[in-house]
Amino acid sequence: MTRYVGYIAMSLDGFIADADGSVGWLDPFNEALAGDTGYAEFIGTIDALIMGRPTYEQVMRWGWPYETRAGYVLTTKPGFSGEHVVAAGDIETLRAAVATNGHSNVWVMGGGETQRAALDARMFDRLRVFLMPILLGGGRPCFAPGKQHNLTFTGATQKPGGIMQLDYEIKE
Amino acid sequence: MTRYVGYIAMSLDGFIADADGSVGWLDPFNEALAGDTGYAEFIGTIDALIMGRPTYEQVMRWGWPYETRAGYVLTTKPGFSGEHVVAAGDIETLRAAVATNGHSNVWVMGGGETQRAALDARMFDRLRVFLMPILLGGGRPCFAPGKQHNLTFTGATQKPGGIMQLDYEIKE
Repeated sequence: MTRYVGYIAMSLDGFIADADGSVGWLDPFNEALAGDTGYAEFIGTIDALIMGRPTYEQVMRWGWPYETRAGYVLTTKPGFSGEHVVAAGDIETLRAAVATNGHSNVWVMGGGETQRAALDARMFDRLRVFLMPILLGGGRPCFAPGKQHNLTFTGATQKPGGIMQLDYEIKE
Repeated sequence: MTRYVGYIAMSLDGFIADADGSVGWLDPFNEALAGDTGYAEFIGTIDALIMGRPTYEQVMRWGWPYETRAGYVLTTKPGFSGEHVVAAGDIETLRAAVATNGHSNVWVMGGGETQRAALDARMFDRLRVFLMPILLGGGRPCFAPGKQHNLTFTGATQKPGGIMQLDYEIKE
């Protein structure tokens, strides 16, 4: 069975990037995030990633820091393909391809439209949010606007730098 | 010296009310919130409240559940007055009136425009957020759009019902 997991840093007011899509606001937290968020452990469990096309383009500029892991890109652009991209299309196309390829743990990376698509398709098993001690005041929301979803809180851990790690399962 | 404090329930995606301004989404949490959020202790420390005009109208429908505490209403409407309202006007007018009246602890109640005005006026001393295990998907943001503000995390407490109490001081 495939498990879909969220793992994302978000401002207290619910944003993941500024209005230009930049995540530079996270820079002051990099040391805190690098030190103790369990990223190495987390990414070790992941064998595929789902992301929106803008996020894909951003991570390609970083040089695809996910080694040989398979990329699935949410896009409305027909025939989209790219390095590390195993499948592209709408969320159900991605889910079917993930199932065919037998991945165990898929990271729904973002951005907000992709998180929303995965939410509404009831794909998420777990959501881990790193809540950053900052009010961005605007930008790209962690979850694009859409339906209400109830969560089950499963745990919280205080991290360095005033960061709270919050864990949820998605109820409905 | 007057201390200004925030104390508010917010969805994980940063909303305090649905698009119509209703806080009915909080109903399923009422029991959890009533039991263990320290509201009685909190309100016992408060001697005045600042709120936006829509929030004032909403709490008047509830019958002003703040006893003899003074109300300060943020509004652009000239000459606004009402029951329990000691002063009305822009945020600096309210701050001056609060100072004149010598209040010790003022609750900046909301809504989002009022939280934003208090933030940008650098009035907040402390912010307590009850982070609810729900994604509303839209509605009235806890903080209206505006400038970035850095926070200092001061503590977190796990509450019944999957609610996280998060405490911050406002840095800048």
